[in-house]
Amino acid sequence: MRMYDVIAKKRDGHELSSEEIYGFIEGYVDGSIPDYQASALLMAIFFNGMNEREILDLTTAMMKSGDQVDLSPIEGIKVDKHSTGGVGDKTSLIVAPIVAACGVKVAKMSGRGLGHTGGTVDKLESIPGFRTDLNEEEFFDVVRKTGISVIGQSGNLTPADKKLYALRDVTATVESIPLIASSIMSKKLAAGSDCIVLDVKTGSGAFMKTVESSVKLAETMVKLGENAGRRTCALITDMDVPLGKNIGNSLEVIEAVDTLKGKGPEDLTHEALYLAANMLELAGKGDEDTCMKLAQSVIDDLSALNCLKQMVKAQHGDVSVIEDTDNFIKAKYSFEVKADRAGYIAHMDTEGCGISSMMLGAGRETLDSKIDMAAGIIIEKKTGDRVEKGDVLATLYADDEKLFDKAEQKYKESIIMSDETVKRNPLLYAKVSRDGIKYF
Amino acid sequence: MRMYDVIAKKRDGHELSSEEIYGFIEGYVDGSIPDYQASALLMAIFFNGMNEREILDLTTAMMKSGDQVDLSPIEGIKVDKHSTGGVGDKTSLIVAPIVAACGVKVAKMSGRGLGHTGGTVDKLESIPGFRTDLNEEEFFDVVRKTGISVIGQSGNLTPADKKLYALRDVTATVESIPLIASSIMSKKLAAGSDCIVLDVKTGSGAFMKTVESSVKLAETMVKLGENAGRRTCALITDMDVPLGKNIGNSLEVIEAVDTLKGKGPEDLTHEALYLAANMLELAGKGDEDTCMKLAQSVIDDLSALNCLKQMVKAQHGDVSVIEDTDNFIKAKYSFEVKADRAGYIAHMDTEGCGISSMMLGAGRETLDSKIDMAAGIIIEKKTGDRVEKGDVLATLYADDEKLFDKAEQKYKESIIMSDETVKRNPLLYAKVSRDGIKYF
Repeated sequence: MRMYDVIAKKRDGHELSSEEIYGFIEGYVDGSIPDYQASALLMAIFFNGMNEREILDLTTAMMKSGDQVDLSPIEGIKVDKHSTGGVGDKTSLIVAPIVAACGVKVAKMSGRGLGHTGGTVDKLESIPGFRTDLNEEEFFDVVRKTGISVIGQSGNLTPADKKLYALRDVTATVESIPLIASSIMSKKLAAGSDCIVLDVKTGSGAFMKTVESSVKLAETMVKLGENAGRRTCALITDMDVPLGKNIGNSLEVIEAVDTLKGKGPEDLTHEALYLAANMLELAGKGDEDTCMKLAQSVIDDLSALNCLKQMVKAQHGDVSVIEDTDNFIKAKYSFEVKADRAGYIAHMDTEGCGISSMMLGAGRETLDSKIDMAAGIIIEKKTGDRVEKGDVLATLYADDEKLFDKAEQKYKESIIMSDETVKRNPLLYAKVSRDGIKYF
Repeated sequence: MRMYDVIAKKRDGHELSSEEIYGFIEGYVDGSIPDYQASALLMAIFFNGMNEREILDLTTAMMKSGDQVDLSPIEGIKVDKHSTGGVGDKTSLIVAPIVAACGVKVAKMSGRGLGHTGGTVDKLESIPGFRTDLNEEEFFDVVRKTGISVIGQSGNLTPADKKLYALRDVTATVESIPLIASSIMSKKLAAGSDCIVLDVKTGSGAFMKTVESSVKLAETMVKLGENAGRRTCALITDMDVPLGKNIGNSLEVIEAVDTLKGKGPEDLTHEALYLAANMLELAGKGDEDTCMKLAQSVIDDLSALNCLKQMVKAQHGDVSVIEDTDNFIKAKYSFEVKADRAGYIAHMDTEGCGISSMMLGAGRETLDSKIDMAAGIIIEKKTGDRVEKGDVLATLYADDEKLFDKAEQKYKESIIMSDETVKRNPLLYAKVSRDGIKYF
């Protein structure tokens, strides 16, 4: 196999053989295929796509490129959840405890944030002492004891994806369904859970800007999961507006705790309940309606919150910040972004809101950036809201006052006002499972 | 300018600004833009193309990336010729002396061969002692004295093209009109001649496989030349069959000398005369017909051959091999490829013939390969010819008998036989100049 021929074949719109796809992944991981040939192939895939068979081969080759976690030493059904990434999306911090409180285990590996999106591992690390670097034995122990554990992705899980993702990120080849689907599903399959619920975000803050492309991505991933013998479903949810009110690491933990106390914002609460219900359904806890009620009940009786506390304790975190979120260290400075005019918020450029938060220190511009755990944004007005001149649109938090100027400008640029009333998008668009697509 | 944004912009089909194109070329040459981002952009250009303005910017940026030769110290009009590369294409060795003998100067920088195509510099170096590494002063002196000089491309001519071409060659991004046109024309413009005749090859031995794509490439290049104030025209010529009979370095010099004596094969003679006539026409020596006669006259009176001898002498070459080509060192071994069956030659895979010659040692597989000056092929039967079983199709020459097996096999695979009579393609398809396209 000559890599040149593989690139030329995909460039000319032909199907790659299994041998060619495995050869590419193996050669890229062992360094015999250089970055510049890999990026040319990625761009050719961006343009010419891949068929189902090619995507399955790519996913399997990537899954097999490193360790595969065997969760069978943990009794019972293990269920995982993955979001394609959004702004203010702290649902993992809410749904994992809910599901665990309902008796279904969650042994989850999560990522760090990059660019305008945050990562669950970063958010958990805003809890003083919280360790996300447990070894496998410790990880399994925490799941056995508390029903839930969330750690960082282990060193040698899907090294092909790590290397390819870093390359895609700098060569403008991220937004490709075969590449996104194989990246996500190779990791989820290697991570070993029995059931997988995918949260595919759509809109201005997501990779997929349209419902149509999100459904296509969801279908591709559900097929990959079911094909590998894992019960898999995907929800297409709105990311045309930040989820909930808080963006930033400790700010999002605070909002997650509020939600687990039944005091979260309506959009976040509803989405978290629906995701949790789908995880429970896949794990065999009954139909969707039954599972919705079950999920609500563990919020009402605070047992989900208790699960979160147990996990924080077991992973060496300071539980006092969960018991009273006022114990979190606060940002040194805050700044109110005020409306320049009256009207309705017609649209929020959600990616822009995420970048504004990153500018305050809450996110990473590059992989090496240090993040400020207390920095971020609390949003007061969202798409559809009526605003008077001088109203506070959002409050910015940072440890350096000099950051407010540019972050305020970015935030304001992300808000489009209108004189007319505006209807907000639905929260949920569709559900994709092995039974097909259900639109809401 | 972020390179990521430039890649994404072209990927999404938008026009790149001048600043972006210059920024890319400067950054790529100085090493601040890595190969993997450059190859992603090249593949995006392959798919989405470039408009006239972008191609002009790319060509100019590449031309300005290194030295530009100022030929004004040499009196009179200087005319250059470039072929997009073919198999058995030794026309430069013929047309340059013809043009010089007609009083128009040729100060030419040529390349080396790679893969299935040969290079004029390699061919000239088969003449013992011939130096292609003259410095500028020596180069100018030879042109002033003999009317003609051919040397290798100087060290710092279009470094952007050198680096980009090497990358395109391993990332399957060669066959793109904006990239081919800017690569050729940046070199030709930097090399400083007043007039440029382009020989755009079409067919199985060329980058451009169809007349349509060849005409498109020709139009693009003619515009670039005229735009830069150089009189430019392009001829679309056939490369669906090797040109002339000989492939290989000294073998091609021998055939060029024969042609300058009026004893060359008909196809090669006619194409060389027509190219020379067009060079003379651009240089103001009269209309095409007048120039054809002028070109023929300097073959008839042997003054063109004499020009070649003068140049060889001035560049320290052994003139005795030109005076009597039997003086060339012969290959140690020869091997006759014979027809397995009777019939007509329906098609020659010209690239395959070139690769067969490369396998004999006449060409380079990689940039580091050493070449054997006497190796190569003399073709006896070409497309359209009647062949009886056992007839010699071609004679292979090499210094190592072990090379014949694979080279014979490759050569035979490149010949398609038929029971029906076959019409050979025309030699010339079209001429593209500032006056438009003329089809023959």
